[in-house]
Amino acid sequence: MERIDGRKPDQLRSIKITRNFTRYAEGSVLIETGNTKVICTATVEDKVPGWLRGQDQGWITAEYSMLPRSTHGRSQRESMRGKIGGRTMEIQRLIGRALRSIVDLKKLGDHTIILDCDVIQADGGTRTASITGSFIALVDAINWMIENGKLLESPIYNFLAATSVGIVNGTPILDLCYEEDSSAQVDMNVIMTGDGKIIELQGTGEEAPFTREELNRLYALGEKGVLELVEFQHRSLGDLVKLVVKKEIANPVYPQPNAVVVEGD
Amino acid sequence: MERIDGRKPDQLRSIKITRNFTRYAEGSVLIETGNTKVICTATVEDKVPGWLRGQDQGWITAEYSMLPRSTHGRSQRESMRGKIGGRTMEIQRLIGRALRSIVDLKKLGDHTIILDCDVIQADGGTRTASITGSFIALVDAINWMIENGKLLESPIYNFLAATSVGIVNGTPILDLCYEEDSSAQVDMNVIMTGDGKIIELQGTGEEAPFTREELNRLYALGEKGVLELVEFQHRSLGDLVKLVVKKEIANPVYPQPNAVVVEGD
Amino acid sequence: MERIDGRKPDQLRSIKITRNFTRYAEGSVLIETGNTKVICTATVEDKVPGWLRGQDQGWITAEYSMLPRSTHGRSQRESMRGKIGGRTMEIQRLIGRALRSIVDLKKLGDHTIILDCDVIQADGGTRTASITGSFIALVDAINWMIENGKLLESPIYNFLAATSVGIVNGTPILDLCYEEDSSAQVDMNVIMTGDGKIIELQGTGEEAPFTREELNRLYALGEKGVLELVEFQHRSLGDLVKLVVKKEIANPVYPQPNAVVVEGD
Amino acid sequence: MERIDGRKPDQLRSIKITRNFTRYAEGSVLIETGNTKVICTATVEDKVPGWLRGQDQGWITAEYSMLPRSTHGRSQRESMRGKIGGRTMEIQRLIGRALRSIVDLKKLGDHTIILDCDVIQADGGTRTASITGSFIALVDAINWMIENGKLLESPIYNFLAATSVGIVNGTPILDLCYEEDSSAQVDMNVIMTGDGKIIELQGTGEEAPFTREELNRLYALGEKGVLELVEFQHRSLGDLVKLVVKKEIANPVYPQPNAVVVEGD
Amino acid sequence: MERIDGRKPDQLRSIKITRNFTRYAEGSVLIETGNTKVICTATVEDKVPGWLRGQDQGWITAEYSMLPRSTHGRSQRESMRGKIGGRTMEIQRLIGRALRSIVDLKKLGDHTIILDCDVIQADGGTRTASITGSFIALVDAINWMIENGKLLESPIYNFLAATSVGIVNGTPILDLCYEEDSSAQVDMNVIMTGDGKIIELQGTGEEAPFTREELNRLYALGEKGVLELVEFQHRSLGDLVKLVVKKEIANPVYPQPNAVVVEGD
Amino acid sequence: MERIDGRKPDQLRSIKITRNFTRYAEGSVLIETGNTKVICTATVEDKVPGWLRGQDQGWITAEYSMLPRSTHGRSQRESMRGKIGGRTMEIQRLIGRALRSIVDLKKLGDHTIILDCDVIQADGGTRTASITGSFIALVDAINWMIENGKLLESPIYNFLAATSVGIVNGTPILDLCYEEDSSAQVDMNVIMTGDGKIIELQGTGEEAPFTREELNRLYALGEKGVLELVEFQHRSLGDLVKLVVKKEIANPVYPQPNAVVVEGD
Repeated sequence: MERIDGRKPDQLRSIKITRNFTRYAEGSVLIETGNTKVICTATVEDKVPGWLRGQDQGWITAEYSMLPRSTHGRSQRESMRGKIGGRTMEIQRLIGRALRSIVDLKKLGDHTIILDCDVIQADGGTRTASITGSFIALVDAINWMIENGKLLESPIYNFLAATSVGIVNGTPILDLCYEEDSSAQVDMNVIMTGDGKIIELQGTGEEAPFTREELNRLYALGEKGVLELVEFQHRSLGDLVKLVVKKEIANPVYPQPNAVVVEGD
Repeated sequence: MERIDGRKPDQLRSIKITRNFTRYAEGSVLIETGNTKVICTATVEDKVPGWLRGQDQGWITAEYSMLPRSTHGRSQRESMRGKIGGRTMEIQRLIGRALRSIVDLKKLGDHTIILDCDVIQADGGTRTASITGSFIALVDAINWMIENGKLLESPIYNFLAATSVGIVNGTPILDLCYEEDSSAQVDMNVIMTGDGKIIELQGTGEEAPFTREELNRLYALGEKGVLELVEFQHRSLGDLVKLVVKKEIANPVYPQPNAVVVEGD
Repeated sequence: MERIDGRKPDQLRSIKITRNFTRYAEGSVLIETGNTKVICTATVEDKVPGWLRGQDQGWITAEYSMLPRSTHGRSQRESMRGKIGGRTMEIQRLIGRALRSIVDLKKLGDHTIILDCDVIQADGGTRTASITGSFIALVDAINWMIENGKLLESPIYNFLAATSVGIVNGTPILDLCYEEDSSAQVDMNVIMTGDGKIIELQGTGEEAPFTREELNRLYALGEKGVLELVEFQHRSLGDLVKLVVKKEIANPVYPQPNAVVVEGD
Repeated sequence: MERIDGRKPDQLRSIKITRNFTRYAEGSVLIETGNTKVICTATVEDKVPGWLRGQDQGWITAEYSMLPRSTHGRSQRESMRGKIGGRTMEIQRLIGRALRSIVDLKKLGDHTIILDCDVIQADGGTRTASITGSFIALVDAINWMIENGKLLESPIYNFLAATSVGIVNGTPILDLCYEEDSSAQVDMNVIMTGDGKIIELQGTGEEAPFTREELNRLYALGEKGVLELVEFQHRSLGDLVKLVVKKEIANPVYPQPNAVVVEGD
Repeated sequence: MERIDGRKPDQLRSIKITRNFTRYAEGSVLIETGNTKVICTATVEDKVPGWLRGQDQGWITAEYSMLPRSTHGRSQRESMRGKIGGRTMEIQRLIGRALRSIVDLKKLGDHTIILDCDVIQADGGTRTASITGSFIALVDAINWMIENGKLLESPIYNFLAATSVGIVNGTPILDLCYEEDSSAQVDMNVIMTGDGKIIELQGTGEEAPFTREELNRLYALGEKGVLELVEFQHRSLGDLVKLVVKKEIANPVYPQPNAVVVEGD
Repeated sequence: MERIDGRKPDQLRSIKITRNFTRYAEGSVLIETGNTKVICTATVEDKVPGWLRGQDQGWITAEYSMLPRSTHGRSQRESMRGKIGGRTMEIQRLIGRALRSIVDLKKLGDHTIILDCDVIQADGGTRTASITGSFIALVDAINWMIENGKLLESPIYNFLAATSVGIVNGTPILDLCYEEDSSAQVDMNVIMTGDGKIIELQGTGEEAPFTREELNRLYALGEKGVLELVEFQHRSLGDLVKLVVKKEIANPVYPQPNAVVVEGD
């Protein structure tokens, strides 16, 4: 099968990461995967959300937005509509959850880190690019905290990257662009740590249900893609790679972000 | 490992489906899985959303809500807060997507079916119970449409059920209750057709990332659970099983529900 | 005159009260009056609203909602519309006001009791059924508070029930079902204590103004209905009847629920 | 009993009605009852609400608001809070319902009349003053419609006025000012036609339930007050009294204002 | 050129200021400029906004609203729309900014003064009338504060008034009424102190850009108008003129009202 | 006086305009003035707002937003707050008004052009940079319309640019950066056509009122700055300069954008 942009089925799009993209944020990254471009900034706040106060740990959260004309047609601003849509909510919850999963929140202390992911141009894979880019912005922010005496050691204990896989015209492919994504029978997002463990897996039979065998083939493609992205993150971070401290946390802490809902599913 | 309610690791909770639970809806089901209780009603409307008009096909959508005191503590009504939360949005988008995936929307004609899932009591697994129960309400509504001359034949071409699986204290288990869910290391929702194909798979390493082997063990548990639920649906539907017409649709139609967002991820 | 369901003009519909309908709430009642079904739960909170803090008394409030398909047609969820409608506001203010009128708020201490009235099926009279059922849920919640050491004695000093009356085709009738209600010339809700005193009376000449004589005939019908409902409440509560302590409070306390509006009408 | 402002128990406050208070509205009235001052304007629109289209009749509706500093303390603008409160909703629904009850909506044709009641100064009784004043603004608007060829004859078939009654320190009194209202044991609003029939009666035992005898004594006071107000309206309208055509309508039409709620209570 | 109401090009409309227009506010003014009528009330609160706490100074802010039928056609209430429109926001920000500019906020202490400007009738120039009238209400409120021991001396150090100028049919004119305003090529609002210095100048080439010479001619007209208005304010205030203490403040304090936006433009 | 960045009082910051910054919009510009960076995109829609339908002319409107971390501190997203703030409204109304003033809306036909101004980095002057950059995006969009057969000739009849001026430490300076802006005594935005006529002038005595002489000095500085910016726009547009057709329109059309407000000020 010939892909629309000439790639092989298991080939990522070209990736580019620009650190310090803007001046003021503690971490600021422009990530480009093909024509998809997302600004990921990390903001450090010296406080935690109200429901977490007094629990002696930090918090990481994310917000996601697309510029109105990042897409082929113009989409209405959510600020003008007066509310956040379901897709935005899903994505920003996913980004926050993923980032929290590789950080020892106890070690973060009474700080909140907010990852703002603003899509400048969208050609498929904006949520996975947001995760991959936010990880770099997070490392930069942690470095800033250490340099400014807010932290003694890094609370990050693993790499984190994400990509999409899918089945298009019967062929499993890696890193779908918009045109591929919109004609995929199956679509799956794979979020993994630097050592190839699953943080989150979301597969949808958009047009047709899929089998266990297809799941495993997609999984393998996704693993290959994420590990290449992590390799790229290594090169991009240079010396700061040392801030990813690879050891298991003894007593993982994972508070519920939304205290009013007490049910667990 | 002893489970909190004495079940075996691969054992579903007791399930009960009451059809015609309320009087007015075209389909009305009370589904009980253990202590989780959800009212699923199906409403038939003789119109389609604006963005689908003139495209000669129908639509299926869902709404989800929890009664304030369905849980241990009271949660604030979303109507009083003035907006739908992220968790609610995620769940109702998931339910709608799942139901649409086993219906030939072309055959549904210019009709919308709305599935309302209202949780009366929550003990984990409310979203998967909503899907399993909504399928029954949908079949009843389709039957009502045929009996009332709104449809000539059923557009449903497969069964649909869902359950949760997870890893608790290192052991993979099926159909988590709330207490298990809140201490799970890994949590996965499995939505499948009647012949064991995947409609949607959402796995999260809530407290620890998981491996490909764990993914496959969880998958196997989920498949076992869903197929038992489908068996139960068969018995519950009786004669109406004939409305599930098992054949592939030639040209699957899957429009984007949110026309303003043109990006595909 | 023959009523649509064969009742006599002064006859209530069959009534059924199920206590402990759900597991988690401190009081949980399913009340059924004919085809009208309402879940009334009472939640005890160990705090009072901000505007009442430091005044050494408790508070009782109510919320009311109809499931989208509790009615013949489907009504949009108020959570989706983003705001509470006028009818809902009127009803939940009425329920709260009525419940507060038979409780010594001083004796309730620094606690708030929230009555959630969720209509499962609506066939007229949902607001009066909500009041009659909430009274039972309130007694159960007070009993729970005493058993859990939160109160020494019951602050309830009278029974409370409500019903509707109206003039249909020129005949005054008791406890209107939906079809009667929608063709009534006059419609009146009667809320009374167990000894037949008026808590609230709301009469509307929906299609024609009415005279003082008609008012008095309707009043008499309403009084008969309420006293029968109170009788039924007695039987339903059994031993807990003792929690209704019939004595007058010395210095009634009735704070304004909405502190920003200082005008009194 | 000495009343705070020296009135007798059955005495109205001084009343003043200024017609044509502002320039642009089809009807514009400043009504003053004691220190309570309300601007009531009537706007004529040549269309009806969407849910009434094609039904060949008109509509009357009302909106109510208090200037922030019409009261002793300043209340927040509802426009700044972003929503209408429960008290406002109740009052504007009441005003609209009352005005509709004395108009033949069929005769009004495809027109909507909006009554805007804006309280400039509040000293109790703002909702009843709004009704009494809006009636005059309505008559002026109907007159304008006839003079401008939009109507051939007046659709108003009765006078309409309203006042409050209550029990303060054990004494039934008429037309409560704010200070009386805030210490009333019982509070009742009486809305009547010009021939003393009841349009709406809302009585609340704010601090103590009340008996049938008390109801009847309050009713008598209210009737006296309303009939005096109607007498005053006669004088204020002068020649325009002829627009109130006293005859019964053959087939009263009373559509439901809120089409989504199909239940009748 | 003949003006529509016979005025000369540099002539203000007749102006009328009624102090103590309503009973409860600390300052309450009805200002009438021609047919434009605005109620301006000043409310004193013994607290400051959260973002100003602990900074040992006060605050002045404003809200602006038009009654629905203050204009030729009826405009929808912003409370019903659920949000404040852009024009309202611009105007109320302008009024607040202008009033703050002539008050020493340090001397005001921990108090907030809220100016509520409610337009009863609109015939052009409502925002400038609001400023001119609010100044009087502010002086009355400061007087009330001194008389009630909340302030030792007045923090007002200059007069403040505003008017509009514009070019209509090629002629620069002063104090435009609605009809002139809607056909103006250029429109400018001039806000000045009592000694003719500019507080704010907003000029717009509504239909045609304008030159520096036109700017200066408009400026001169505006200056003439404002100084006449200040003269009128003098007469209206009588003895209270002494509360305007004409001296420069040593260290002007001008905090940003909206703490979240740190950019200065 | 030494300026913070070494500029002379009458010197603009370095300016950079990148056309075709993103792929999908009909016009897309990144404008950088010093450290201020704004993405301005122009979207062409083949329809006009409802209130303009059937009037045979087009419309131009603008939206403005700042990325949360475009500033030193993080500001909350307006989409999360659920409403647009006053400053945003003022700015986007200003941008739209300015762009409309140099376009013959009759010639634009039944099209709307939306200018989206998204601030990536803010160092003062974001609103004036938005106007200067949006003009370029507008020209590109008009060019696209002509090339795609949607227009026969360009409706733009003048250049448009904007800058800020102010008085800092007693010295009038041009093009204030954030630090200068936040300590300015007087602040003024100047929006002009390519031939030096005023489109809009907004001057505020932030900390001290200013005189006519100061106004004229600021005006002269602003004029110098704008004309330099227009020169830069010329070079940036190259051949497309021909789309700015310098002739006066015979019958200027300037409809009111907000049809519900009929007052003109």
